Amino acid sequence: MLESKYPDQVCSVARALEVVGERWTLLLVREALMGVRRFDDFRESLGLARSVLTARLNHLVDEGVFERRQYQSRPERYEYQLTAKGRQLGPVVLHLMHWGDSHYPSAGGAPRVALHRGCGGRVSATMNCARCRQRVPYGSLELKPGPGLRAVSE
Amino acid sequence: MLESKYPDQVCSVARALEVVGERWTLLLVREALMGVRRFDDFRESLGLARSVLTARLNHLVDEGVFERRQYQSRPERYEYQLTAKGRQLGPVVLHLMHWGDSHYPSAGGAPRVALHRGCGGRVSATMNCARCRQRVPYGSLELKPGPGLRAVSE
Repeated sequence: MLESKYPDQVCSVARALEVVGERWTLLLVREALMGVRRFDDFRESLGLARSVLTARLNHLVDEGVFERRQYQSRPERYEYQLTAKGRQLGPVVLHLMHWGDSHYPSAGGAPRVALHRGCGGRVSATMNCARCRQRVPYGSLELKPGPGLRAVSE
Repeated sequence: MLESKYPDQVCSVARALEVVGERWTLLLVREALMGVRRFDDFRESLGLARSVLTARLNHLVDEGVFERRQYQSRPERYEYQLTAKGRQLGPVVLHLMHWGDSHYPSAGGAPRVALHRGCGGRVSATMNCARCRQRVPYGSLELKPGPGLRAVSE
């Protein structure tokens, strides 16, 4: 169910923020674009409490941003994948990433880079590929560790 | 000062969310793109408590997202305008708006529309103008009431 934190706001931005405005949501979308699918991997990469992560993922499944799929039966294990609706949030994450990189740069360089899946070119904030010059469809956006993140993990 | 709500997150998305992740921030940017500049107008359009709005705007001025300008001296009155850095958040608001319109449509139509200032063409989520076919610079994006918002106020 959609929460109504902005009851007087007739606005698609407000409605969108009711779903994605919670502070961890866009970080979950970011992780999913990095290829994370399993509960424990989300938990480890975000350092979230199990209960908080469960609540967040359930909410996002209810909203159709993620879908939950069983990948193992004994014990039961599920993975979470972005739906088409969820992938349409990719450019929001991408734009925040470019904005953060340009205004709050890390010493080691960009922590993550946005790539055109299959092609490998860098994707601009407006979803254009710097290599093949094509518009990148939402489903072909992927994130990979950049120099800033590799510097930390080495 | 930049708050650190995601201390373990080496990520420009996380850093960007430390600034814009608070639930009202992107709504303030949206209002500014609608042409709102004065404290009381922000307060009225968002229905925010004076203390909350003051704290938010001061934080965003400190972060360089808004700048504060005196427009009257007796009594002292200030207005708040987006900086170039703040305008670079326009596409985030725009994309959330398109996402909200497509997944949570209002009965009366889109509450707000994105226009290319001076040209008047509709602006897509990727910042292209449907009329002149040009890329729309961040500084030329403006929002106007759409059919959904006009339906409510009539």
